Amino acid sequence: MIKDIDKQLFTILAYYPETSVVKEAMSYSLMSGGKRLRPQLLLAMLQDFGCDYQIGLYPACALEMVHTYSLVHDDLPAMDDDDMRRFKPTNHKVFGEGVAILAGDALLTGAFTALSQASLDADVLGKCFEILARNAGSNGMILGQELDIDDQIQHIDDLVACYNLKTGCLFAAAFEMAAVIAGQDAYQKLAHELGLSLGVAFQFQDDLLEVTKSSEEIGKSNQSDAERDKTTVVSLLGLEQARTLTESYFSSIKDLLRKMNIENGNLKQIIDEMMSREL
Amino acid sequence: MIKDIDKQLFTILAYYPETSVVKEAMSYSLMSGGKRLRPQLLLAMLQDFGCDYQIGLYPACALEMVHTYSLVHDDLPAMDDDDMRRFKPTNHKVFGEGVAILAGDALLTGAFTALSQASLDADVLGKCFEILARNAGSNGMILGQELDIDDQIQHIDDLVACYNLKTGCLFAAAFEMAAVIAGQDAYQKLAHELGLSLGVAFQFQDDLLEVTKSSEEIGKSNQSDAERDKTTVVSLLGLEQARTLTESYFSSIKDLLRKMNIENGNLKQIIDEMMSREL
Repeated sequence: MIKDIDKQLFTILAYYPETSVVKEAMSYSLMSGGKRLRPQLLLAMLQDFGCDYQIGLYPACALEMVHTYSLVHDDLPAMDDDDMRRFKPTNHKVFGEGVAILAGDALLTGAFTALSQASLDADVLGKCFEILARNAGSNGMILGQELDIDDQIQHIDDLVACYNLKTGCLFAAAFEMAAVIAGQDAYQKLAHELGLSLGVAFQFQDDLLEVTKSSEEIGKSNQSDAERDKTTVVSLLGLEQARTLTESYFSSIKDLLRKMNIENGNLKQIIDEMMSREL
Repeated sequence: MIKDIDKQLFTILAYYPETSVVKEAMSYSLMSGGKRLRPQLLLAMLQDFGCDYQIGLYPACALEMVHTYSLVHDDLPAMDDDDMRRFKPTNHKVFGEGVAILAGDALLTGAFTALSQASLDADVLGKCFEILARNAGSNGMILGQELDIDDQIQHIDDLVACYNLKTGCLFAAAFEMAAVIAGQDAYQKLAHELGLSLGVAFQFQDDLLEVTKSSEEIGKSNQSDAERDKTTVVSLLGLEQARTLTESYFSSIKDLLRKMNIENGNLKQIIDEMMSREL
Protein backbone atom coordinates (compact mmCIF):
# COMPACT_ATOMS: atom_id res chain seq x y z
CA MET A 1 0.00 0.00 0.00
CA ILE A 2 2.80 2.44 0.91
CA LYS A 3 4.51 1.70 -2.42
CA ASP A 4 1.32 2.58 -4.29
CA ILE A 5 1.03 5.83 -2.34
CA ASP A 6 4.65 6.77 -3.05
CA LYS A 7 4.27 5.91 -6.73
CA GLN A 8 1.18 8.10 -6.97
CA LEU A 9 2.99 10.95 -5.21
CA PHE A 10 5.83 10.69 -7.76
CA THR A 11 3.25 10.89 -10.56
CA ILE A 12 1.78 14.00 -8.96
CA LEU A 13 5.20 15.64 -8.56
CA ALA A 14 6.06 14.89 -12.21
CA TYR A 15 3.29 17.35 -13.10
CA TYR A 16 5.51 20.27 -11.98
CA PRO A 17 8.40 21.76 -14.00
CA GLU A 18 11.80 20.05 -13.60
CA THR A 19 13.66 23.33 -13.25
CA SER A 20 11.57 24.70 -10.40
CA VAL A 21 13.28 25.07 -7.01
CA VAL A 22 9.84 25.12 -5.38
CA LYS A 23 9.14 21.72 -6.94
CA GLU A 24 12.47 20.47 -5.57
CA ALA A 25 11.51 21.77 -2.13
CA MET A 26 8.06 20.13 -2.42
CA SER A 27 9.71 16.80 -3.31
CA TYR A 28 12.26 17.15 -0.53
CA SER A 29 9.60 17.24 2.17
CA LEU A 30 7.02 15.03 0.47
CA MET A 31 9.48 12.19 -0.22
CA SER A 32 11.43 12.34 3.02
CA GLY A 33 10.30 9.01 4.42
CA GLY A 34 7.06 9.91 6.13
CA LYS A 35 4.97 7.03 7.42
CA ARG A 36 2.07 7.85 5.06
CA LEU A 37 -0.22 7.38 8.03
CA ARG A 38 -3.09 9.56 6.81
CA PRO A 39 -3.22 8.04 3.31
CA GLN A 40 -3.04 4.55 4.83
CA LEU A 41 -5.91 5.31 7.20
CA LEU A 42 -8.06 6.45 4.28
CA LEU A 43 -7.20 3.45 2.10
CA ALA A 44 -7.58 0.93 4.92
CA MET A 45 -11.06 2.19 5.73
CA LEU A 46 -11.95 2.02 2.04
CA GLN A 47 -10.88 -1.63 2.04
CA ASP A 48 -12.89 -2.29 5.18
CA PHE A 49 -15.94 -0.92 3.37
CA GLY A 50 -15.29 -3.48 0.62
CA CYS A 51 -13.73 -1.16 -1.96
CA ASP A 52 -10.58 -1.48 -4.05
CA TYR A 53 -8.27 1.01 -2.39
CA GLN A 54 -6.88 2.16 -5.75
CA ILE A 55 -9.90 4.43 -6.21
CA GLY A 56 -8.80 6.40 -3.15
CA LEU A 57 -5.16 6.99 -4.13
CA TYR A 58 -5.54 10.58 -5.32
CA PRO A 59 -7.55 11.69 -2.26
CA ALA A 60 -5.02 9.84 -0.06
CA CYS A 61 -2.12 11.68 -1.70
CA ALA A 62 -3.97 14.99 -1.39
CA LEU A 63 -4.14 14.36 2.37
CA GLU A 64 -0.42 13.60 2.55
CA MET A 65 0.31 16.82 0.66
CA VAL A 66 -1.80 18.86 3.08
CA HIS A 67 -0.08 17.17 6.02
CA THR A 68 3.37 17.86 4.53
CA TYR A 69 2.61 21.53 3.81
CA SER A 70 1.53 21.93 7.44
CA LEU A 71 4.87 20.51 8.63
CA VAL A 72 6.89 22.75 6.29
CA HIS A 73 5.11 25.91 7.49
CA ASP A 74 5.06 24.73 11.12
CA ASP A 75 8.86 24.31 11.13
CA LEU A 76 9.46 27.91 9.96
CA PRO A 77 11.33 30.29 12.30
CA ALA A 78 8.16 32.36 12.83
CA MET A 79 6.34 29.21 13.96
CA ASP A 80 8.07 26.32 15.81
CA ASP A 81 11.53 27.18 14.48
CA ASP A 82 12.68 23.59 14.01
CA ASP A 83 15.97 22.65 12.38
CA MET A 84 15.42 18.92 11.99
CA ARG A 85 12.50 16.76 10.84
CA ARG A 86 12.61 13.02 10.12
CA PHE A 87 16.42 12.98 10.65
CA LYS A 88 16.92 15.64 7.95
CA PRO A 89 17.30 19.42 7.99
CA THR A 90 13.90 21.12 7.74
CA ASN A 91 12.77 22.59 4.43
CA HIS A 92 13.71 26.21 5.14
CA LYS A 93 17.14 25.12 6.41
CA VAL A 94 17.86 23.66 2.96
CA PHE A 95 15.96 25.99 0.61
CA GLY A 96 15.60 29.21 2.60
CA GLU A 97 12.45 30.65 4.13
CA GLY A 98 11.01 32.20 0.99
CA VAL A 99 11.10 28.96 -0.99
CA ALA A 100 9.83 26.97 2.03
CA ILE A 101 6.80 29.26 2.30
CA LEU A 102 6.11 28.85 -1.43
CA ALA A 103 6.68 25.07 -1.26
CA GLY A 104 4.12 24.83 1.54
CA ASP A 105 1.66 26.93 -0.46
CA ALA A 106 2.33 24.77 -3.51
CA LEU A 107 1.77 21.52 -1.61
CA LEU A 108 -1.53 22.84 -0.24
CA THR A 109 -2.71 24.05 -3.65
CA GLY A 110 -1.35 20.90 -5.31
CA ALA A 111 -3.42 18.78 -2.94
CA PHE A 112 -6.56 20.20 -4.54
CA THR A 113 -5.18 19.64 -8.04
CA ALA A 114 -4.37 16.05 -7.09
CA LEU A 115 -7.89 15.58 -5.73
CA SER A 116 -9.35 16.96 -8.97
CA GLN A 117 -7.57 14.15 -10.86
CA ALA A 118 -9.40 11.36 -8.98
CA SER A 119 -11.67 9.17 -11.09
CA LEU A 120 -14.71 9.61 -8.90
CA ASP A 121 -18.29 10.64 -9.59
CA ALA A 122 -18.57 14.43 -9.68
CA ASP A 123 -20.81 14.55 -6.61
CA VAL A 124 -18.48 12.32 -4.58
CA LEU A 125 -15.52 14.44 -5.66
CA GLY A 126 -17.39 17.59 -4.62
CA LYS A 127 -17.92 16.09 -1.16
CA CYS A 128 -14.21 15.23 -0.92
CA PHE A 129 -13.25 18.83 -1.76
CA GLU A 130 -15.56 20.12 0.95
CA ILE A 131 -14.24 17.58 3.49
CA LEU A 132 -10.57 18.30 2.79
CA ALA A 133 -10.91 22.10 2.83
CA ARG A 134 -13.13 22.17 5.93
CA ASN A 135 -10.87 19.92 8.00
CA ALA A 136 -7.65 21.59 6.84
CA GLY A 137 -8.90 25.17 7.18
CA SER A 138 -9.29 27.68 9.95
CA ASN A 139 -12.16 25.85 11.58
CA GLY A 140 -9.97 22.74 11.54
CA MET A 141 -6.23 22.08 11.43
CA ILE A 142 -5.23 25.75 11.13
CA LEU A 143 -7.33 26.66 14.18
CA GLY A 144 -5.43 23.91 15.99
CA GLN A 145 -2.12 25.46 14.95
CA GLU A 146 -3.37 28.79 16.23
CA LEU A 147 -4.26 27.33 19.63
CA ASP A 148 -0.85 25.68 19.64
CA ILE A 149 1.15 28.89 19.07
CA ASP A 150 -1.23 30.96 21.19
CA ASP A 151 0.20 29.38 24.36
CA GLN A 152 -3.10 29.60 26.28
CA ILE A 153 -3.39 25.89 27.03
CA GLN A 154 -3.79 25.47 30.78
CA HIS A 155 -6.27 22.65 31.21
CA ILE A 156 -6.47 19.16 29.73
CA ASP A 157 -9.70 20.19 27.93
CA ASP A 158 -7.81 22.97 26.12
CA LEU A 159 -5.16 20.46 25.10
CA VAL A 160 -7.76 18.00 23.83
CA ALA A 161 -9.43 20.80 21.85
CA CYS A 162 -6.07 21.71 20.32
CA TYR A 163 -5.16 18.10 19.41
CA ASN A 164 -8.66 17.46 18.06
CA LEU A 165 -8.13 20.26 15.59
CA LYS A 166 -4.38 20.12 14.95
CA THR A 167 -4.11 16.40 14.30
CA GLY A 168 -7.62 14.98 14.55
CA CYS A 169 -9.09 17.00 11.71
CA LEU A 170 -6.78 15.53 9.04
CA PHE A 171 -7.50 12.01 10.34
CA ALA A 172 -11.18 12.97 10.22
CA ALA A 173 -10.72 14.07 6.61
CA ALA A 174 -9.19 10.67 5.81
CA PHE A 175 -12.13 8.79 7.32
CA GLU A 176 -14.86 11.11 6.03
CA MET A 177 -13.46 10.87 2.50
CA ALA A 178 -13.25 7.08 2.79
CA ALA A 179 -16.90 6.98 3.90
CA VAL A 180 -18.22 9.13 1.03
CA ILE A 181 -16.01 7.44 -1.60
CA ALA A 182 -17.37 4.07 -0.43
CA GLY A 183 -20.91 5.44 -0.64
CA GLN A 184 -21.26 5.01 3.15
CA ASP A 185 -22.35 8.60 3.77
CA ALA A 186 -24.42 7.48 6.75
CA TYR A 187 -21.13 6.86 8.59
CA GLN A 188 -19.61 10.26 7.77
CA LYS A 189 -20.37 11.72 11.19
CA LEU A 190 -18.93 8.72 13.05
CA ALA A 191 -15.95 8.81 10.72
CA HIS A 192 -15.32 12.42 11.70
CA GLU A 193 -15.57 11.56 15.40
CA LEU A 194 -13.20 8.64 14.92
CA GLY A 195 -10.64 10.94 13.31
CA LEU A 196 -10.77 13.43 16.17
CA SER A 197 -10.33 10.74 18.83
CA LEU A 198 -7.47 9.13 16.95
CA GLY A 199 -5.80 12.52 16.58
CA VAL A 200 -5.91 13.13 20.32
CA ALA A 201 -4.65 9.62 21.12
CA PHE A 202 -1.84 10.00 18.58
CA GLN A 203 -0.72 13.35 19.97
CA PHE A 204 -0.88 12.05 23.55
CA GLN A 205 1.42 9.26 22.42
CA ASP A 206 3.80 11.79 20.89
CA ASP A 207 3.88 13.63 24.20
CA LEU A 208 4.60 10.37 26.03
CA LEU A 209 7.33 9.42 23.55
CA GLU A 210 8.98 12.81 24.04
CA VAL A 211 9.63 12.06 27.70
CA THR A 212 10.54 8.40 27.28
CA LYS A 213 12.70 8.60 24.16
CA SER A 214 15.65 10.79 23.24
CA SER A 215 15.32 13.25 20.36
CA GLU A 216 17.95 11.23 18.48
CA GLU A 217 15.59 8.29 18.36
CA ILE A 218 12.54 10.33 17.33
CA GLY A 219 14.38 12.22 14.57
CA LYS A 220 12.74 15.53 15.37
CA SER A 221 14.18 18.79 16.57
CA ASN A 222 17.01 18.89 19.06
CA GLN A 223 14.72 20.96 21.25
CA SER A 224 12.38 18.92 23.43
CA ASP A 225 8.87 19.94 24.53
CA ALA A 226 10.15 20.52 28.06
CA GLU A 227 13.01 22.71 26.86
CA ARG A 228 10.66 24.92 24.90
CA ASP A 229 8.21 24.91 27.79
CA LYS A 230 5.40 23.37 25.77
CA THR A 231 2.26 22.16 27.50
CA THR A 232 1.71 18.42 26.96
CA VAL A 233 -0.54 15.75 28.41
CA VAL A 234 2.42 14.73 30.59
CA SER A 235 3.12 18.23 31.87
CA LEU A 236 -0.59 18.62 32.70
CA LEU A 237 -1.38 15.19 34.19
CA GLY A 238 1.91 13.45 34.96
CA LEU A 239 3.16 10.28 33.25
CA GLU A 240 0.82 7.70 34.77
CA GLN A 241 -2.42 9.62 34.34
CA ALA A 242 -1.35 10.57 30.85
CA ARG A 243 -0.89 6.90 29.96
CA THR A 244 -4.30 6.01 31.41
CA LEU A 245 -6.05 8.77 29.47
CA THR A 246 -4.32 7.70 26.25
CA GLU A 247 -5.50 4.12 26.75
CA SER A 248 -9.05 5.34 27.31
CA TYR A 249 -8.94 7.18 23.99
CA PHE A 250 -7.81 4.03 22.21
CA SER A 251 -10.67 2.08 23.73
CA SER A 252 -13.24 4.67 22.64
CA ILE A 253 -11.70 4.38 19.17
CA LYS A 254 -12.42 0.65 19.22
CA ASP A 255 -16.03 1.40 20.18
CA LEU A 256 -16.35 3.67 17.18
CA LEU A 257 -14.91 1.01 14.85
CA ARG A 258 -17.47 -1.41 16.25
CA LYS A 259 -20.32 1.03 15.59
CA MET A 260 -19.15 1.27 11.99
CA ASN A 261 -19.00 -2.54 11.70
CA ILE A 262 -15.33 -2.52 10.78
CA GLU A 263 -13.90 -3.62 14.12
CA ASN A 264 -11.82 -6.46 12.66
CA GLY A 265 -10.50 -4.99 9.43
CA ASN A 266 -7.42 -3.36 7.95
CA LEU A 267 -8.00 -0.10 9.77
CA LYS A 268 -8.04 -1.87 13.13
CA GLN A 269 -4.65 -3.34 12.30
CA ILE A 270 -3.10 0.05 11.48
CA ILE A 271 -4.56 1.58 14.63
CA ASP A 272 -3.19 -1.34 16.67
CA GLU A 273 0.24 -0.65 15.20
CA MET A 274 -0.17 3.01 16.14
CA MET A 275 -1.13 1.96 19.66
CA SER A 276 1.95 -0.19 20.09
CA ARG A 277 4.30 2.57 18.87
CA GLU A 278 6.98 2.28 21.55
CA LEU A 279 4.91 3.62 24.42
CA MET B 1 -21.44 44.30 -8.05
CA ILE B 2 -18.65 45.16 -5.59
CA LYS B 3 -21.20 45.42 -2.78
CA ASP B 4 -22.43 41.91 -3.56
CA ILE B 5 -18.87 40.59 -3.54
CA ASP B 6 -18.11 42.25 -0.20
CA LYS B 7 -21.36 40.98 1.30
CA GLN B 8 -20.53 37.45 0.19
CA LEU B 9 -17.02 37.74 1.64
CA PHE B 10 -18.51 38.80 4.99
CA THR B 11 -20.77 35.73 4.89
CA ILE B 12 -17.74 33.54 4.22
CA LEU B 13 -15.75 35.11 7.08
CA ALA B 14 -18.68 34.63 9.47
CA TYR B 15 -18.07 30.90 9.09
CA TYR B 16 -14.90 31.18 11.21
CA PRO B 17 -14.80 31.48 15.02
CA GLU B 18 -15.14 35.01 16.45
CA THR B 19 -12.30 34.51 18.92
CA SER B 20 -9.71 33.43 16.36
CA VAL B 21 -6.79 35.80 15.76
CA VAL B 22 -6.18 34.06 12.43
CA LYS B 23 -9.75 34.94 11.43
CA GLU B 24 -9.08 38.54 12.45
CA ALA B 25 -5.93 38.53 10.33
CA MET B 26 -7.84 36.99 7.40
CA SER B 27 -10.50 39.72 7.67
CA TYR B 28 -7.89 42.44 8.00
CA SER B 29 -6.37 41.66 4.62
CA LEU B 30 -9.52 40.48 2.86
CA MET B 31 -11.57 43.56 3.81
CA SER B 32 -8.87 46.19 3.36
CA GLY B 33 -10.38 47.94 0.39
CA GLY B 34 -9.10 45.88 -2.52
CA LYS B 35 -10.55 46.68 -5.93
CA ARG B 36 -12.10 43.19 -6.24
CA LEU B 37 -10.75 43.12 -9.77
CA ARG B 38 -10.57 39.33 -10.16
CA PRO B 39 -14.10 38.68 -8.87
CA GLN B 40 -15.41 41.49 -11.07
CA LEU B 41 -13.71 40.04 -14.14
CA LEU B 42 -15.34 36.68 -13.49
CA LEU B 43 -18.79 38.12 -12.87
CA ALA B 44 -18.63 40.53 -15.81
CA MET B 45 -17.77 37.70 -18.20
CA LEU B 46 -20.63 35.66 -16.77
CA GLN B 47 -22.98 38.56 -17.53
CA ASP B 48 -21.57 38.85 -21.03
CA PHE B 49 -22.40 35.18 -21.54
CA GLY B 50 -26.00 36.00 -20.57
CA CYS B 51 -25.96 34.64 -17.01
CA ASP B 52 -27.11 36.15 -13.74
CA TYR B 53 -23.83 36.97 -12.03
CA GLN B 54 -25.14 35.86 -8.64
CA ILE B 55 -24.40 32.22 -9.54
CA GLY B 56 -20.71 33.11 -9.73
CA LEU B 57 -20.36 34.87 -6.37
CA TYR B 58 -18.77 31.99 -4.43
CA PRO B 59 -16.20 31.22 -7.15
CA ALA B 60 -15.52 34.97 -7.44
CA CYS B 61 -14.91 35.22 -3.68
CA ALA B 62 -12.70 32.12 -3.78
CA LEU B 63 -10.53 33.93 -6.33
CA GLU B 64 -10.30 37.02 -4.15
CA MET B 65 -9.26 34.85 -1.19
CA VAL B 66 -6.52 33.20 -3.23
CA HIS B 67 -5.34 36.61 -4.43
CA THR B 68 -5.33 37.96 -0.86
CA TYR B 69 -3.41 34.99 0.56
CA SER B 70 -0.77 35.51 -2.14
CA LEU B 71 -0.36 39.15 -1.07
CA VAL B 72 -0.11 38.26 2.64
CA HIS B 73 2.62 35.68 2.01
CA ASP B 74 4.34 37.83 -0.61
CA ASP B 75 4.68 40.72 1.87
CA LEU B 76 6.47 38.54 4.47
CA PRO B 77 10.06 39.40 5.43
CA ALA B 78 11.34 36.19 3.77
CA MET B 79 9.66 37.27 0.51
CA ASP B 80 9.23 40.93 -0.55
CA ASP B 81 9.46 42.28 3.02
CA ASP B 82 6.84 44.99 2.58
CA ASP B 83 5.60 47.15 5.45
CA MET B 84 2.66 48.80 3.73
CA ARG B 85 -0.15 47.58 1.46
CA ARG B 86 -3.19 49.58 0.38
CA PHE B 87 -2.22 52.45 2.74
CA LYS B 88 -2.21 50.11 5.76
CA PRO B 89 0.51 48.14 7.57
CA THR B 90 0.94 44.69 6.06
CA ASN B 91 -0.56 41.66 7.78
CA HIS B 92 2.61 40.47 9.55
CA LYS B 93 3.31 44.02 10.75
CA VAL B 94 0.01 43.95 12.64
CA PHE B 95 -0.35 40.28 13.65
CA GLY B 96 3.22 38.96 13.57
CA GLU B 97 4.77 36.57 11.08
CA GLY B 98 3.39 33.34 12.52
CA VAL B 99 -0.22 34.50 12.39
CA ALA B 100 0.31 36.03 8.93
CA ILE B 101 1.59 32.70 7.59
CA LEU B 102 -1.44 30.92 9.08
CA ALA B 103 -3.84 33.61 7.81
CA GLY B 104 -2.48 33.14 4.29
CA ASP B 105 -2.83 29.37 4.60
CA ALA B 106 -6.36 29.84 5.94
CA LEU B 107 -7.37 32.15 3.08
CA LEU B 108 -6.05 29.66 0.52
CA THR B 109 -7.80 26.71 2.17
CA GLY B 110 -10.91 28.81 2.77
CA ALA B 111 -11.08 29.61 -0.93
CA PHE B 112 -11.75 25.94 -1.61
CA THR B 113 -14.34 25.78 1.16
CA ALA B 114 -16.04 28.85 -0.34
CA LEU B 115 -16.00 27.26 -3.77
CA SER B 116 -17.55 24.09 -2.35
CA GLN B 117 -20.53 26.19 -1.18
CA ALA B 118 -21.46 27.34 -4.70
CA SER B 119 -24.83 26.18 -5.98
CA LEU B 120 -23.49 24.74 -9.20
CA ASP B 121 -23.87 21.35 -10.88
CA ALA B 122 -21.35 18.90 -9.45
CA ASP B 123 -19.50 18.54 -12.76
CA VAL B 124 -19.23 22.33 -13.22
CA LEU B 125 -18.01 22.67 -9.64
CA GLY B 126 -15.41 19.96 -10.24
CA LYS B 127 -14.12 21.92 -13.24
CA CYS B 128 -13.93 25.08 -11.12
CA PHE B 129 -11.85 23.29 -8.46
CA GLU B 130 -9.45 22.06 -11.13
CA ILE B 131 -9.21 25.52 -12.73
CA LEU B 132 -8.57 27.33 -9.46
CA ALA B 133 -5.98 24.88 -8.13
CA ARG B 134 -4.12 24.60 -11.45
CA ASN B 135 -3.86 28.36 -12.00
CA ALA B 136 -2.97 29.12 -8.37
CA GLY B 137 -0.46 26.29 -7.95
CA SER B 138 3.17 25.69 -8.78
CA ASN B 139 2.54 25.47 -12.50
CA GLY B 140 0.72 28.78 -12.23
CA MET B 141 0.82 31.71 -9.83
CA ILE B 142 3.32 30.13 -7.42
CA LEU B 143 5.74 29.41 -10.28
CA GLY B 144 5.41 33.10 -11.16
CA GLN B 145 6.30 34.05 -7.56
CA GLU B 146 9.30 31.75 -7.80
CA LEU B 147 10.54 33.41 -11.01
CA ASP B 148 9.97 36.76 -9.30
CA ILE B 149 12.12 36.02 -6.22
CA ASP B 150 14.63 34.04 -8.29
CA ASP B 151 15.99 37.28 -9.77
CA GLN B 152 16.96 35.65 -13.08
CA ILE B 153 14.87 37.94 -15.28
CA GLN B 154 17.15 39.48 -17.90
CA HIS B 155 15.09 39.60 -21.07
CA ILE B 156 11.60 40.91 -21.82
CA ASP B 157 10.52 37.31 -22.62
CA ASP B 158 11.48 36.24 -19.08
CA LEU B 159 9.46 39.12 -17.67
CA VAL B 160 6.43 38.24 -19.79
CA ALA B 161 6.70 34.60 -18.66
CA CYS B 162 6.82 35.75 -15.02
CA TYR B 163 3.85 38.13 -15.35
CA ASN B 164 1.86 35.54 -17.31
CA LEU B 165 2.15 33.23 -14.32
CA LYS B 166 2.24 35.63 -11.39
CA THR B 167 -0.75 37.74 -12.38
CA GLY B 168 -2.14 36.24 -15.57
CA CYS B 169 -2.98 32.86 -14.12
CA LEU B 170 -5.49 34.20 -11.57
CA PHE B 171 -7.12 36.32 -14.28
CA ALA B 172 -7.16 33.16 -16.40
CA ALA B 173 -8.86 31.31 -13.53
CA ALA B 174 -11.53 34.05 -13.42
CA PHE B 175 -12.26 33.75 -17.13
CA GLU B 176 -12.03 29.95 -17.32
CA MET B 177 -14.43 29.60 -14.40
CA ALA B 178 -16.81 32.09 -16.00
CA ALA B 179 -16.73 30.09 -19.25
CA VAL B 180 -17.47 26.72 -17.63
CA ILE B 181 -20.10 28.15 -15.25
CA ALA B 182 -21.85 29.68 -18.26
CA GLY B 183 -21.64 26.34 -20.07
CA GLN B 184 -19.35 27.92 -22.67
CA ASP B 185 -16.61 25.31 -22.31
CA ALA B 186 -15.65 25.78 -25.97
CA TYR B 187 -14.23 29.18 -24.98
CA GLN B 188 -12.19 27.90 -22.01
CA LYS B 189 -8.90 27.94 -23.92
CA LEU B 190 -9.44 31.47 -25.24
CA ALA B 191 -10.51 32.51 -21.76
CA HIS B 192 -7.20 31.24 -20.38
CA GLU B 193 -5.26 33.11 -23.07
CA LEU B 194 -7.22 36.28 -22.33
CA GLY B 195 -6.32 36.01 -18.65
CA LEU B 196 -2.62 35.64 -19.36
CA SER B 197 -2.54 38.64 -21.71
CA LEU B 198 -4.50 40.79 -19.29
CA GLY B 199 -2.11 39.79 -16.49
CA VAL B 200 0.91 40.92 -18.48
CA ALA B 201 -0.75 44.19 -19.53
CA PHE B 202 -1.80 44.85 -15.92
CA GLN B 203 1.70 44.23 -14.54
CA PHE B 204 3.26 46.38 -17.26
CA GLN B 205 0.92 49.14 -16.17
CA ASP B 206 2.00 48.67 -12.55
CA ASP B 207 5.61 49.02 -13.66
CA LEU B 208 4.76 52.20 -15.56
CA LEU B 209 2.82 53.62 -12.61
CA GLU B 210 5.79 52.99 -10.30
CA VAL B 211 7.94 55.42 -12.28
CA THR B 212 5.28 58.02 -12.95
CA LYS B 213 3.58 58.12 -9.53
CA SER B 214 4.94 58.47 -6.02
CA SER B 215 4.54 55.58 -3.58
CA GLU B 216 2.28 57.81 -1.49
CA GLU B 217 -0.24 57.90 -4.30
CA ILE B 218 -0.07 54.15 -4.99
CA GLY B 219 -0.37 53.16 -1.32
CA LYS B 220 2.21 50.41 -1.55
CA SER B 221 5.56 50.00 0.11
CA ASN B 222 7.83 52.93 0.74
CA GLN B 223 10.42 51.05 -1.30
CA SER B 224 10.14 51.56 -5.05
CA ASP B 225 11.04 49.00 -7.73
CA ALA B 226 14.12 51.01 -8.64
CA GLU B 227 15.27 51.20 -5.02
CA ARG B 228 15.04 47.44 -4.60
CA ASP B 229 16.64 46.97 -8.02
CA LYS B 230 13.71 45.07 -9.45
CA THR B 231 13.56 44.28 -13.15
CA THR B 232 10.50 45.86 -14.78
CA VAL B 233 9.28 46.45 -18.31
CA VAL B 234 10.59 50.02 -17.92
CA SER B 235 14.05 48.98 -16.72
CA LEU B 236 14.29 46.54 -19.63
CA LEU B 237 12.84 48.63 -22.47
CA GLY B 238 12.69 52.25 -21.34
CA LEU B 239 9.51 54.28 -20.80
CA GLU B 240 8.41 54.81 -24.41
CA GLN B 241 8.89 51.25 -25.63
CA ALA B 242 7.27 49.96 -22.45
CA ARG B 243 4.19 52.08 -23.16
CA THR B 244 4.01 50.84 -26.74
CA LEU B 245 4.28 47.20 -25.70
CA THR B 246 1.57 47.67 -23.07
CA GLU B 247 -0.76 49.19 -25.68
CA SER B 248 -0.12 46.23 -28.00
CA TYR B 249 -1.17 43.85 -25.22
CA PHE B 250 -4.39 45.74 -24.71
CA SER B 251 -5.16 45.55 -28.40
CA SER B 252 -4.57 41.79 -28.49
CA ILE B 253 -6.94 41.58 -25.52
CA LYS B 254 -9.61 43.32 -27.61
CA ASP B 255 -9.03 40.78 -30.38
CA LEU B 256 -9.63 37.95 -27.94
CA LEU B 257 -12.86 39.55 -26.68
CA ARG B 258 -13.99 39.79 -30.30
CA LYS B 259 -13.24 36.10 -30.90
CA MET B 260 -15.39 35.28 -27.87
CA ASN B 261 -18.22 37.51 -29.19
CA ILE B 262 -18.24 39.65 -26.06
CA GLU B 263 -16.43 42.67 -27.45
CA ASN B 264 -19.05 45.18 -26.34
CA GLY B 265 -20.06 43.89 -22.94
CA ASN B 266 -19.45 44.43 -19.24
CA LEU B 267 -16.02 42.87 -19.35
CA LYS B 268 -14.89 45.27 -22.06
CA GLN B 269 -15.93 48.15 -19.81
CA ILE B 270 -13.89 46.88 -16.84
CA ILE B 271 -10.87 46.28 -19.05
CA ASP B 272 -11.24 49.81 -20.50
CA GLU B 273 -11.20 51.15 -16.94
CA MET B 274 -8.07 49.12 -16.26
CA MET B 275 -6.50 50.56 -19.42
CA SER B 276 -7.19 54.13 -18.39
CA ARG B 277 -5.72 53.62 -14.89
CA GLU B 278 -3.56 56.78 -14.74
CA LEU B 279 -0.90 55.69 -17.21
